[in-house]
Amino acid sequence: TVQKYTASVEFDKKLAIYDIQASQAHAEMLQHKKIISSSDFKKIRNGLHKIKKEIEKGNFKWSIALEDVHLNIENRLTQLIGDSGKKLHTARSRNDQIATDLRLYLRDQIDEIRLKIALLRMEFVKKAELHCDIIMPGLTHLQVAQPINFGHHLLAYEAMFARDDERLADARKRVNRMPLGSAALAGTGFPIDRNRVAKNLKFDSLCENSMDAVSDRDFVIEVTSSLALTMVHFSRISEEIVLWMSSNFNFITISDKFCTGSSIMPQKKNPDVPELARGKTARVVGSLVTLLTLMKSQPLAYNKDNQEDKEPLFDAVETVSNTTKIFIELIANIRPNPKEMRDAALKGYPTATDLADYLVNKKIPFRDAHEIVSKIVSFAIEKNLLLNEIPLLTLQKLCPVIDQKIFKFINLKGSVDSRKHIGGTSSKQVLKQAKKLNLEISKTITEIEKFKTQK
Amino acid sequence: TVQKYTASVEFDKKLAIYDIQASQAHAEMLQHKKIISSSDFKKIRNGLHKIKKEIEKGNFKWSIALEDVHLNIENRLTQLIGDSGKKLHTARSRNDQIATDLRLYLRDQIDEIRLKIALLRMEFVKKAELHCDIIMPGLTHLQVAQPINFGHHLLAYEAMFARDDERLADARKRVNRMPLGSAALAGTGFPIDRNRVAKNLKFDSLCENSMDAVSDRDFVIEVTSSLALTMVHFSRISEEIVLWMSSNFNFITISDKFCTGSSIMPQKKNPDVPELARGKTARVVGSLVTLLTLMKSQPLAYNKDNQEDKEPLFDAVETVSNTTKIFIELIANIRPNPKEMRDAALKGYPTATDLADYLVNKKIPFRDAHEIVSKIVSFAIEKNLLLNEIPLLTLQKLCPVIDQKIFKFINLKGSVDSRKHIGGTSSKQVLKQAKKLNLEISKTITEIEKFKTQK
Amino acid sequence: TVQKYTASVEFDKKLAIYDIQASQAHAEMLQHKKIISSSDFKKIRNGLHKIKKEIEKGNFKWSIALEDVHLNIENRLTQLIGDSGKKLHTARSRNDQIATDLRLYLRDQIDEIRLKIALLRMEFVKKAELHCDIIMPGLTHLQVAQPINFGHHLLAYEAMFARDDERLADARKRVNRMPLGSAALAGTGFPIDRNRVAKNLKFDSLCENSMDAVSDRDFVIEVTSSLALTMVHFSRISEEIVLWMSSNFNFITISDKFCTGSSIMPQKKNPDVPELARGKTARVVGSLVTLLTLMKSQPLAYNKDNQEDKEPLFDAVETVSNTTKIFIELIANIRPNPKEMRDAALKGYPTATDLADYLVNKKIPFRDAHEIVSKIVSFAIEKNLLLNEIPLLTLQKLCPVIDQKIFKFINLKGSVDSRKHIGGTSSKQVLKQAKKLNLEISKTITEIEKFKTQK
Amino acid sequence: TVQKYTASVEFDKKLAIYDIQASQAHAEMLQHKKIISSSDFKKIRNGLHKIKKEIEKGNFKWSIALEDVHLNIENRLTQLIGDSGKKLHTARSRNDQIATDLRLYLRDQIDEIRLKIALLRMEFVKKAELHCDIIMPGLTHLQVAQPINFGHHLLAYEAMFARDDERLADARKRVNRMPLGSAALAGTGFPIDRNRVAKNLKFDSLCENSMDAVSDRDFVIEVTSSLALTMVHFSRISEEIVLWMSSNFNFITISDKFCTGSSIMPQKKNPDVPELARGKTARVVGSLVTLLTLMKSQPLAYNKDNQEDKEPLFDAVETVSNTTKIFIELIANIRPNPKEMRDAALKGYPTATDLADYLVNKKIPFRDAHEIVSKIVSFAIEKNLLLNEIPLLTLQKLCPVIDQKIFKFINLKGSVDSRKHIGGTSSKQVLKQAKKLNLEISKTITEIEKFKTQK
Repeated sequence: TVQKYTASVEFDKKLAIYDIQASQAHAEMLQHKKIISSSDFKKIRNGLHKIKKEIEKGNFKWSIALEDVHLNIENRLTQLIGDSGKKLHTARSRNDQIATDLRLYLRDQIDEIRLKIALLRMEFVKKAELHCDIIMPGLTHLQVAQPINFGHHLLAYEAMFARDDERLADARKRVNRMPLGSAALAGTGFPIDRNRVAKNLKFDSLCENSMDAVSDRDFVIEVTSSLALTMVHFSRISEEIVLWMSSNFNFITISDKFCTGSSIMPQKKNPDVPELARGKTARVVGSLVTLLTLMKSQPLAYNKDNQEDKEPLFDAVETVSNTTKIFIELIANIRPNPKEMRDAALKGYPTATDLADYLVNKKIPFRDAHEIVSKIVSFAIEKNLLLNEIPLLTLQKLCPVIDQKIFKFINLKGSVDSRKHIGGTSSKQVLKQAKKLNLEISKTITEIEKFKTQK
Repeated sequence: TVQKYTASVEFDKKLAIYDIQASQAHAEMLQHKKIISSSDFKKIRNGLHKIKKEIEKGNFKWSIALEDVHLNIENRLTQLIGDSGKKLHTARSRNDQIATDLRLYLRDQIDEIRLKIALLRMEFVKKAELHCDIIMPGLTHLQVAQPINFGHHLLAYEAMFARDDERLADARKRVNRMPLGSAALAGTGFPIDRNRVAKNLKFDSLCENSMDAVSDRDFVIEVTSSLALTMVHFSRISEEIVLWMSSNFNFITISDKFCTGSSIMPQKKNPDVPELARGKTARVVGSLVTLLTLMKSQPLAYNKDNQEDKEPLFDAVETVSNTTKIFIELIANIRPNPKEMRDAALKGYPTATDLADYLVNKKIPFRDAHEIVSKIVSFAIEKNLLLNEIPLLTLQKLCPVIDQKIFKFINLKGSVDSRKHIGGTSSKQVLKQAKKLNLEISKTITEIEKFKTQK
Repeated sequence: TVQKYTASVEFDKKLAIYDIQASQAHAEMLQHKKIISSSDFKKIRNGLHKIKKEIEKGNFKWSIALEDVHLNIENRLTQLIGDSGKKLHTARSRNDQIATDLRLYLRDQIDEIRLKIALLRMEFVKKAELHCDIIMPGLTHLQVAQPINFGHHLLAYEAMFARDDERLADARKRVNRMPLGSAALAGTGFPIDRNRVAKNLKFDSLCENSMDAVSDRDFVIEVTSSLALTMVHFSRISEEIVLWMSSNFNFITISDKFCTGSSIMPQKKNPDVPELARGKTARVVGSLVTLLTLMKSQPLAYNKDNQEDKEPLFDAVETVSNTTKIFIELIANIRPNPKEMRDAALKGYPTATDLADYLVNKKIPFRDAHEIVSKIVSFAIEKNLLLNEIPLLTLQKLCPVIDQKIFKFINLKGSVDSRKHIGGTSSKQVLKQAKKLNLEISKTITEIEKFKTQK
Repeated sequence: TVQKYTASVEFDKKLAIYDIQASQAHAEMLQHKKIISSSDFKKIRNGLHKIKKEIEKGNFKWSIALEDVHLNIENRLTQLIGDSGKKLHTARSRNDQIATDLRLYLRDQIDEIRLKIALLRMEFVKKAELHCDIIMPGLTHLQVAQPINFGHHLLAYEAMFARDDERLADARKRVNRMPLGSAALAGTGFPIDRNRVAKNLKFDSLCENSMDAVSDRDFVIEVTSSLALTMVHFSRISEEIVLWMSSNFNFITISDKFCTGSSIMPQKKNPDVPELARGKTARVVGSLVTLLTLMKSQPLAYNKDNQEDKEPLFDAVETVSNTTKIFIELIANIRPNPKEMRDAALKGYPTATDLADYLVNKKIPFRDAHEIVSKIVSFAIEKNLLLNEIPLLTLQKLCPVIDQKIFKFINLKGSVDSRKHIGGTSSKQVLKQAKKLNLEISKTITEIEKFKTQK
């Protein structure tokens, strides 16, 4: 029971290839600094290579008695190459080894996720270009507020995921530093060359202070925070997709492949994927709380508590990775129902603000204009009329400065197109933004690809 | 009851000066674009200035019936200057206004906190330089592991807070973007110039998409995550200070001003400040959870739920700000007890690794050396001897390759000084690091000061 | 700065009346056991009484230099009555005192909140009786599933809040135990009578073990968990109210007093109260996280970290108390729009299950019936028909066993009324449940009132 | 990809035996009410029995294409028995089915965990009886406060786990209610007998309202809260064990089986199990946050988000179950070092309170006594004396009322033994408590065993 409770190999074996990669670089440096012989190094290099193949082919026998990924691999190495294998652990400790493995893993995962986010952003931009002429109700408080175009709405999500990408890029700088060489906590008496290993492993720099290097996990927490925010953004668009697919909205249709039926109600088509994405957001928030709670009040240096950092991190990474992948396809697959959107936009007097703005242009102070429009809207509600159905004469009775041109302003399309400043909802602005974003996203992809080839 | 439940003025009045600052810039642009007249602008400018003075002097009458900071100020403005006051809200909405206020506030707070963190880091560096010759036990799993020097231990914390600073600097880039001009959610039909306002308010750029600009709060969550991590770092050093002050450790003494007595036990001197800092970490973690849970699944655009974003953010900001301020003084105030530290370092065979490394240098593979040393340690425990108290002959019986030089290696100071690579615990390394850090911190302070004068 | 950081009087003064109540009982016992004299006791009793009056009238001068509520009161007592005041703290400590105060406070708050929850449940029952004939779409996955009646839907919430009440009642048992007499952590050498004090203060029993009594806060966490669940239930009905008030649903209307307008859009009526309740849920979840994180890994016995337990608890208590109070009125104020509900119920083939069940009654295995109905629904969608608009002959072509009676089953009212087992949605069941619940709630109110008079 | 994202069978197969159990009872009722024939029922019964055997033997082929545990089993049933299998799903839905399975599972797990907690409490009691004469320092703020006995300290934990048991017992009442019969959300038109099924499955009562029954998960959250508190208690004793095992305390020894060595430091013996338990506390807190966040703002009735409720619940249950199991053995295994404990108790003037109390008995008001003792302690610190090493004459100079008897009071054993009221730390009290607790725990075990045989 105790062994099962304390062993980590069941989950940390996910780090095996990074453990081998780091060991190769460590051994190369040991040889270079003459801490081990060339012949030992060659045996280690070949032995590790062989183990990597075994793992890739699924032939490696993981043993819970050997606790963790490190001892499993080292043990196998000694089986394969004898005494030379026992020299690999010179001048290092599992404490700096696991921190290094975790950073190598996370650096890779950040690059993968950023690439997926870039593709997702592209889908939003594509859809925005396609649908920048579809008018829908812009809601605040889930109440109809002002008409907007569907493309503009989609670009709001592009903006959120763009910031998620920025955050991951910033976090990557703090992930891509090497703890190796810190040994257990104090460094080592062997004449090691930390910079050589770092360069070999493509780390940007070192986690210099050895006690900090082996014991802090703020890089894990920072990345998980960032992933939690990404999931929060997924939860928001998921909420909207679920709403838009409900029969009272009926704004969009998505392919059956993202839905499931009901075991009892034959007519159902449930928006499973967005609902699950919304649910999985809770999961990543929970993982973040686990990590913060785990780290709180830990004295220096390494404590076994930190073994618990891996599962929440791995889970957060996989959840975001899988969700992003599915949403690339899901967003591409959204088909809007322009008629339903337009009909909904007509309800709720969405151009009341335009009417008020029109009055402001007639020199009525905004607050007074707001008051007047409130009265006009009350009148319209009472008479069950839309704003543009009120006869001009009646409008003029309520506010004499109004003239015929008003109807251009309080029309849905007129309202949308008038918002033509940077970031406004007019179609032209949306197209302009889309163009700019396409360039930005391409640049991001190039940057990430460059990272990947460097490794 | 409902009014009290829904009003926010009790806490958002903290944003008043930022609200006025943003209104000044908005009015200036309205005038520049001829949306309001010069005369209106002058009245507004002077009126707002007067209100600012009233607030600073504590003469402003906040009214809960006027809901929030915005309406309170606008209402007072109209009282003071009449109809011109009613024009200020042209081409904006409370939705973009509050998002702007919050960003101006947070930008200031980030700069203030970063400055405090820089001063705190300086204290760690100063103390590290001072105490780099004091040997203490380096612990892992709270067990004596290897001897380190106290300065090295302190620099581990400098490294943590340095990353906290980096994170805040990165977050600042995403905070310092302007939502104003997004109006309620769709932008406005008035011919506004968003870039002019942004420049005037020293924002780096715009939150372009209007729907995203008014509804997302990821910048609030990102900063709070970062603050939570900073508190986690405070909780770690607090845990250690509490331990070090306990009579079984007795490693350090701190001034009575950071402690309180007991109402019943006359002899007590309780480490109140570090205990509270540890406790307040929980508070900031809780605030982060509030913000993530708040944002999850919110459909676009603004929803009233977001009114709840302010209290947790303000609380997190003030908690970190106050804690950092106190710790600058507390760290400066720590007096180590070198004798107690040294005595503790002698317990627990802390130089066993050095003995193993010594054997590796005698060509024994590390794993075998580790085995041999385990036996030597067992022998020492049984005989109740320290490592360096075992006679050479006995050592040679256990492992023949050992010679007289061993005693240099397994001595505390020898062990510490041997770890002289980058980031190792030798005194020289600590002094070298300290020198480098002093330069870095000075550079950071210059950067922040520059930010401050720009505003 | 340190004083402000460490003092708690700004928030723990909320416990003043409980502190006095506990001190009165403690002093009475000290006198009874002859630890203090009758004359001292009388002076203490009268002094405390006077202080209570001062506090109630707002005349009491709280001092931050006196740290907390306990020292502020004791200090004032000694000012008022001299040396006798200095004897009150005999045989106790602030550690058992604060734990006692907190429990007295929480016991009161539980009773108040339970009473409010009972009144809220009554509103649900009243509304359910009133609206048990209004048919609306029952949704799963926000998709129309089956017709239900509005009363049934409301009773689902009654059931949730009933469990919240149960949980608070259970938690009260663990709150209503007395720590006093545990002194600092070990008990006291004076011959105290803990049971006498407990009886006097109407505690059910003692927190016996003195170390546990002063250091654990699981009762605080348990109650906050329970309050978090209550808020989760509020967040669910709030989400529904927001949905129901959106123009695409338009299922209900609520009074303007629970809504606010927009600063820019004159036509808006925003569901502020439910949105805020939803937002405030996040706040209580955050407080729970704070408390759990705070308590985690604290060694025995009392640590200063625990000073941070009060603010999150107080905030959770007040949030739930205020929200419940407002919802009693809000629920009473909901006016359904039966026509809109019914129209929505007709969309989406909500009686498809009834059709399948009809076929099962015709001896078709359920899974096959499910298949057949899927085809019928697909046909109906294609032809744009409701189920009951498909001609009998066409239905029979798709499944020959169907006869004329089918139209009774697939009609909204027929569907609802057929679900007449315990807990089903038929109007009769709803009325039956309502009757039973009325009795249960009355019983609960009587129980709580009894608690209140006992105190 | 989508299938993998949405399928739950990989984790909900853990519910298979409960799913079968519920299906058996459902089918029995369908037959009893003549909704299916006797012959169908018999086939179903035998088919399900066969499937159960297949699952137990590990021969069952789970398919991800069949989404979840329910469809996997139903599908296999139809393979085995043909058309009768298709009738099992009559009058139910996966929505009420999964809620029922989850409750059956959780009821079992609660009983198992409660039993383990009872055994753990017994170990604390046994150890307390054994060690009630060992004096150690009672700490507050990790500072020496007053002497206590080790048995008393251990009983503080018994008290915490006893409340954890109470909470689980209370939660069980709310778990042990049956949702089956609620079908998708509205109940069913078939003439079902819910009470018959409930009785058959040993449920105490029904979750009556069908919409509430299928959609709320407060029972899951309540149990997880309770489990989080249990882990918080484990984290506290773990923190203490880690402290007590550190060389500066050295209060206890535990068996090597709960520890691991270091890969680099041959002398280390790390307290892995308590450190991991402390870490795993974070995990359960995270799961609770996931569940609360998941449930927040969900509209009625069932939403797919709830599929995410299982993994955090299962993980919390298993974490607490495994941790409790290991701690039963770990606590049994603790060996105190009485000498080290006693030596530590002598530091820090732990009997200062006794000296103050002695003065109170000499008619000096407590606050004045407290003052006098502070001076005596300061004197002792200055002269580097223990309290009982100060000559009587010196004491009398500082406070004339002191006489020879004082030395009985300020002696460690005298101090401990004087705290002899209920819950005090004297050995006699500890033995008395232990006796009482033994009876209580036995009673609890009998109750749980009775639950288990009923099922």
